Amino acid sequence: MIDTNITRLVLDVLKPRQPGILEFAETIASLLADTSVEVAVLEIDEQTETVAVKVRGNALDYHCLEKGITDMGASVHSIDEVDVCSTSEKD
Amino acid sequence: MIDTNITRLVLDVLKPRQPGILEFAETIASLLADTSVEVAVLEIDEQTETVAVKVRGNALDYHCLEKGITDMGASVHSIDEVDVCSTSEKD
Amino acid sequence: MIDTNITRLVLDVLKPRQPGILEFAETIASLLADTSVEVAVLEIDEQTETVAVKVRGNALDYHCLEKGITDMGASVHSIDEVDVCSTSEKD
Amino acid sequence: MIDTNITRLVLDVLKPRQPGILEFAETIASLLADTSVEVAVLEIDEQTETVAVKVRGNALDYHCLEKGITDMGASVHSIDEVDVCSTSEKD
Amino acid sequence: MIDTNITRLVLDVLKPRQPGILEFAETIASLLADTSVEVAVLEIDEQTETVAVKVRGNALDYHCLEKGITDMGASVHSIDEVDVCSTSEKD
Amino acid sequence: MIDTNITRLVLDVLKPRQPGILEFAETIASLLADTSVEVAVLEIDEQTETVAVKVRGNALDYHCLEKGITDMGASVHSIDEVDVCSTSEKD
Amino acid sequence: MIDTNITRLVLDVLKPRQPGILEFAETIASLLADTSVEVAVLEIDEQTETVAVKVRGNALDYHCLEKGITDMGASVHSIDEVDVCSTSEKD
Repeated sequence: MIDTNITRLVLDVLKPRQPGILEFAETIASLLADTSVEVAVLEIDEQTETVAVKVRGNALDYHCLEKGITDMGASVHSIDEVDVCSTSEKD
Repeated sequence: MIDTNITRLVLDVLKPRQPGILEFAETIASLLADTSVEVAVLEIDEQTETVAVKVRGNALDYHCLEKGITDMGASVHSIDEVDVCSTSEKD
Repeated sequence: MIDTNITRLVLDVLKPRQPGILEFAETIASLLADTSVEVAVLEIDEQTETVAVKVRGNALDYHCLEKGITDMGASVHSIDEVDVCSTSEKD
Repeated sequence: MIDTNITRLVLDVLKPRQPGILEFAETIASLLADTSVEVAVLEIDEQTETVAVKVRGNALDYHCLEKGITDMGASVHSIDEVDVCSTSEKD
Repeated sequence: MIDTNITRLVLDVLKPRQPGILEFAETIASLLADTSVEVAVLEIDEQTETVAVKVRGNALDYHCLEKGITDMGASVHSIDEVDVCSTSEKD
Repeated sequence: MIDTNITRLVLDVLKPRQPGILEFAETIASLLADTSVEVAVLEIDEQTETVAVKVRGNALDYHCLEKGITDMGASVHSIDEVDVCSTSEKD
Repeated sequence: MIDTNITRLVLDVLKPRQPGILEFAETIASLLADTSVEVAVLEIDEQTETVAVKVRGNALDYHCLEKGITDMGASVHSIDEVDVCSTSEKD
């Protein structure tokens, strides 16, 4: 059997203006150990902003990430990039 | 005799919107041990999306990859880049 | 529990022409130990200037930074980028 | 006497759609030991495609490469780049 | 207490055509030990020229630099970039 | 006394279509030991082609290079770049 | 006292077509020990050519360079860039 492991995700996220991207990034990072999260604002509208969220780590749990994002009133508009590594074959 | 070994593939793939690129990338990576798979969305249409799939590894088995892609209802539109290494000559 | 740690911030700041960016950068740097601060002027108006402030360090305290900026009569117009790392899970 | 040694070739090749670039690249690589071959599709027409073939190795045998390409029904449209190294002078 | 330390400055300087940039750069460098100074001409007018002055070092003394520039009949039009590092906290 | 040593040359050469750039590059490389020669086609006309010839080595003998080029019916249209190093001063 | 040391110069030079850039570069390099000189042709007119001369070394003597350039009938049109390093303070 071969296991797989998500190592990078680029998400396009639509979020309300609050919480700000600082709290937003910290909340995302707090969900996954040993992970780096970069959040950059792409577009600002009156009530919402579109941000790019890049997450790097080992064995990223997307559903955990997505739940955290949704819990802040934001939504993943699209997953734009995914990197996955596979392990050596095991018995 | 000289053996050859595919080390990189760049595929242009047309896929249905489901499964999403996360599951799509994980499925591809699960087919080949010790491989890295990058999937990036290039274009989104109503029912389908075009994705670039970059696969790096050692001795990549293209037919295995292609079967996995087809099994998800997607099709390899074109193989855009291939890197192949050859081994030293053997008897 | 997982701790998080802000490692980089890019701020868009509107500041009065005085204090100049030299004193402005030194004041910001004096707030946080072992930190590097880069300030670049983006736009100059009659009374104000817009500057990009990039701060790199470990465990950056944003509220301390923001207070220092406000104390100089400037205001953080937006936080444009945030990088956060998470630690290993602890009991 | 000084020997020379082709270390890199960039070829512009017109090939029939079949064999595909995967088999095409593997066949080229199988001709020369310890060589890396990159094939990228530049233009696709109905019956033919134009591909860039980059070959790196040591002491590349161009005539062997060209024969392999011709044997697949393709033709070298032009040699666009050549790198050659010379050895130290020998008696 | 936290000390700060200017490590890089980018100045936009308006200078008379004399002294030339060679003497101008040497004079600036002579003011600060262990420093590198790059001067590039950006624009030449009849009597004056605009130059970019990049200074890298450790604990750069801006007021000393500025005085040296003024003493040559030139003026710092603007400080465009400043990098500052802070030290570890001390008692 | 200070010796000088040409380490790089970029030549713009007009050559007949024959010999092709492969033989052309090999012939140039065969003239100078321990040298790397890169030839790239810039423009193709009916009877002639313009090629860029980049030569790197140590103590390149230009006149030897030029003679080899001329002997193939080509001519150096211009020397576009030259790098020269000087040695330490000797008695 | 702080010594300074010119480490890089970029000169814009107007030169007659003769001597060619090869002899021109060699002559410049022969003036200064342990120096690298790059000459690139920027513009060719009927009788003259404009060349960029980049010189890197340690403690470059500009006046020696300029004299050598003038002795070949050329003239330094402008000094476009200068890098200067300063030494540690000495008694």
